[in-house]
Amino acid sequence: VLIRSIGTDHDRLPHTGTLRYADDVPQIPAAALSQPDADNLALQLQTGQTVRFRLYLTCRLEAEMRTSANVLAEVLGREKPDEVVLLAAHLDSWDLGTGALDNGAGCAIIAAAAQLIGQLPQPPRRTIRVLLTANEEFGLSGARAYAEKYQAELGSHVAALESDFGAGRLWALRSLVKEDKVPLVRAWAELLAPLGIVYRDNSARGGADLSALAAARIPLFDLRQDGTAYFDYHHTANDTLDKVVPAELQQNVAGYATLVYLLAENPENLGRAPEPAP
Amino acid sequence: VLIRSIGTDHDRLPHTGTLRYADDVPQIPAAALSQPDADNLALQLQTGQTVRFRLYLTCRLEAEMRTSANVLAEVLGREKPDEVVLLAAHLDSWDLGTGALDNGAGCAIIAAAAQLIGQLPQPPRRTIRVLLTANEEFGLSGARAYAEKYQAELGSHVAALESDFGAGRLWALRSLVKEDKVPLVRAWAELLAPLGIVYRDNSARGGADLSALAAARIPLFDLRQDGTAYFDYHHTANDTLDKVVPAELQQNVAGYATLVYLLAENPENLGRAPEPAP
Repeated sequence: VLIRSIGTDHDRLPHTGTLRYADDVPQIPAAALSQPDADNLALQLQTGQTVRFRLYLTCRLEAEMRTSANVLAEVLGREKPDEVVLLAAHLDSWDLGTGALDNGAGCAIIAAAAQLIGQLPQPPRRTIRVLLTANEEFGLSGARAYAEKYQAELGSHVAALESDFGAGRLWALRSLVKEDKVPLVRAWAELLAPLGIVYRDNSARGGADLSALAAARIPLFDLRQDGTAYFDYHHTANDTLDKVVPAELQQNVAGYATLVYLLAENPENLGRAPEPAP
Repeated sequence: VLIRSIGTDHDRLPHTGTLRYADDVPQIPAAALSQPDADNLALQLQTGQTVRFRLYLTCRLEAEMRTSANVLAEVLGREKPDEVVLLAAHLDSWDLGTGALDNGAGCAIIAAAAQLIGQLPQPPRRTIRVLLTANEEFGLSGARAYAEKYQAELGSHVAALESDFGAGRLWALRSLVKEDKVPLVRAWAELLAPLGIVYRDNSARGGADLSALAAARIPLFDLRQDGTAYFDYHHTANDTLDKVVPAELQQNVAGYATLVYLLAENPENLGRAPEPAP
C-alpha cells in the first residue's frame, strides 16, 4: 500500500504514522509518499505503461519492549492540595524529525504555564500537576500507566487539559463540564479574549493521552490551536525547532497560564463531567 | 567541511552543488546541511560539549567518463537561414531532485517559444536554433563541444539567450550590444512592457553555457527572472514539477517568444557585442 501524504506542503518529505491492520487481513507493507513523489508516480501510472517501484523501508518493530517513564511535576495547592488540575503533554515523538512540534511544544507550553503560576507570591488553592507522558505515539501506554497508578486520585482531578498540536496560536476554548457550569466557563473565557481566544461550546474531548482517563469523567478543557501548518510538519523530518514561532508559543503559554490559574483558584468545584459526545 | 545551505527555506533538505579545491590543499570531504540541521548542530556546539557528527556521503566521482549529447532544433529563417538566434538551456540536472526548475523549465521555455514562432504563417528572416546542452552542471562540456563544432558559424550567430533560472516571472531585460543599438533594444522592450518586463541596462552576461561562447562576441540578451524561491529548490530534492507555477512558465514563454521573434525578424544585424564588463 502506498498512500499520498496528508499535508498541504510540497516537500519531498513523507508524512508518516502508525499502521493498524484489521485482524483478518494479511499484514502487507505500507508507506506514505510525499506530494511531489505521489504526483510523479501518478503521472507515470497515467501513461499506461508498466511502472517499477522500489520501496525501501527501514522501520521495524523490535522484538524486545523497552521501558520508558512518565515525568510529573507539581505546584502544590495552598488550600486543597489533594485536588488536581492536570496538564498533559507527551515526551516521545515520531522518529523522523526532532519532535519540536509533536510534542516538544506541548511540553514547553504546559511546563511554562505551571512555572509562571508557581512563581506567584502565593500558589492557587489547588494543585497543578504537569504530566509528561511516555509513549503517546505508540499506544498511549504512559497515559494508561498514569491512570492505573493514580486511579484512587482521579476522582479529585478537578480539570484536565492537554497540549498536543504544536505551537500554533490558540483561538478557541471548548469545555466539557456540567451544563450549569457553562456560564462560569464563559465568564472565564472573557479573560482569554484579549489573547484572541473565544469560547466555542461544551463539547471538549481532550487529547489522545487524556482519552486514557476518560472513565474518571474529569472536566475537560480544549484550548484549540491554529493547525494551518501542523500536518505539513507533524510526523515528518521537518518537525524541527525552527518551525516553532516564538510569539505563537508565548501566546499558548499565556492562554494556558490564565485558564489553569482560574481552574486551580476557583472557589467551588466543577463536579464531574458529562459523558462526551459519541 | 560542513556548510549551511544557502536557501531561505526551512526544509530538512540540503542545498548541494559542486566542490572545487585549490591545487595546494588536501581534498577533504565537504557537505551542506539543511537550515534546521545547521541550527541543531550550532546549538549543540554552543553548549561547549564534545559533539559527535556522523557524515554519510554517497556522492562520488566515477572513474569512467560517460558520453552524453546536445540536442539541437531549428526554425529555419526565410531570408537569412545562416544567421542564427541561439536559445540555450541544459538537459542535465543535479542529482537530488528531478530537475524541474534546473533546468527542465528552461528547456520548456525556449522550446515552446521557438515552437510558437515556428507555427506562424511564415518563419522570421533568420534561423532560430534551440540548443539543449549536455552537462552544464559539471563543467559546461556540452556548451564547449557546441562552440568547437560550430566555431565557423559563431560569427553569424546574431544573438544568444539562455534560460537557466527556473520558471519564475520575467521582470527585466538586459542587453549586451553596441552602444548605437541600445535605442533599438529599448524600443523592442516597449513590446515586453505589457508582460511586466522593463529594460534595465546594456550589461547582459548570458548564462553559464553561453560563457563557453564568449570569444565569439555574440550580442547577448538576459531576460531576468524573479528568483525569490529559486535557491530554496535548486539543487535540492525539492526541485520537482509541482514547484513550477504554470502562469509564470507561460509568462516566460511569452517573453522569450516576443524577443526572439524581434531578433530573428530585425531587418538589420546588431553586429558584434562589446566586451562584457569584468
